[in-house]
Amino acid sequence: MIGRLNHVAIAVRDLDAACAVYRDTLGAKISEPLPQPEHGVTVVFVELPNSKVELMAPLGADSPIASFVERNPAGGVHHVCYEVDDILAARDTLKAQGARVLGTGEPRIGAHGKPVLFLHPKDFLGTLTELEQV
Amino acid sequence: MIGRLNHVAIAVRDLDAACAVYRDTLGAKISEPLPQPEHGVTVVFVELPNSKVELMAPLGADSPIASFVERNPAGGVHHVCYEVDDILAARDTLKAQGARVLGTGEPRIGAHGKPVLFLHPKDFLGTLTELEQV
Repeated sequence: MIGRLNHVAIAVRDLDAACAVYRDTLGAKISEPLPQPEHGVTVVFVELPNSKVELMAPLGADSPIASFVERNPAGGVHHVCYEVDDILAARDTLKAQGARVLGTGEPRIGAHGKPVLFLHPKDFLGTLTELEQV
Repeated sequence: MIGRLNHVAIAVRDLDAACAVYRDTLGAKISEPLPQPEHGVTVVFVELPNSKVELMAPLGADSPIASFVERNPAGGVHHVCYEVDDILAARDTLKAQGARVLGTGEPRIGAHGKPVLFLHPKDFLGTLTELEQV
């Protein structure tokens, strides 16, 4: 079912400092910051030859990652994202096996403008797992 | 400096259960378990089209991931690994910028038979970061 590792997302409090780590210290190519008010985050993409790292910081008062960055003031891996061909078929297969899909269970449009779903970390090795239809 | 995202490592207590999640629930191709007594872990590779996930469980009494899986009984992302062309040059560049390299600072031979170093999570967004020379 799952295809490419689309990205690893690292949540941080200070996006500028995080950009400096990846751009200056690790010498990677990064994008401009992209505010996503509808998701409550600002995102920077670290562009690697085969995949991406997403650096995310809270945006606005009700950011869904606010509590994560409070618990992890230095930052931390927030989720991993795998690509799927058909997100509704993937969802139904997972649910039939008892895996929990977060939210309403209906795909939302994610940071890349494509349908995404998040899977419950307790069902996926303590790892918040995103599926993105490509 | 950093190149490809070589792998994301997820540490778990129960490797068989973790394999079932990736092989059966998520439908990915996985390798046979590879015991690595010299690293205190048993590893299974999840082979994705562009990268890998490594599932790791403690092996032996002094496993370096024993405390991690005690703190994270459901499992969790343990580290991310980026490829570099020249690990000694990368190390020296990072150290010159004040980043901390774990252990002796000398590369060890990692799970893939190649020289690796680990970087201090506090200097890399709360994320244990491995460099592997390819």
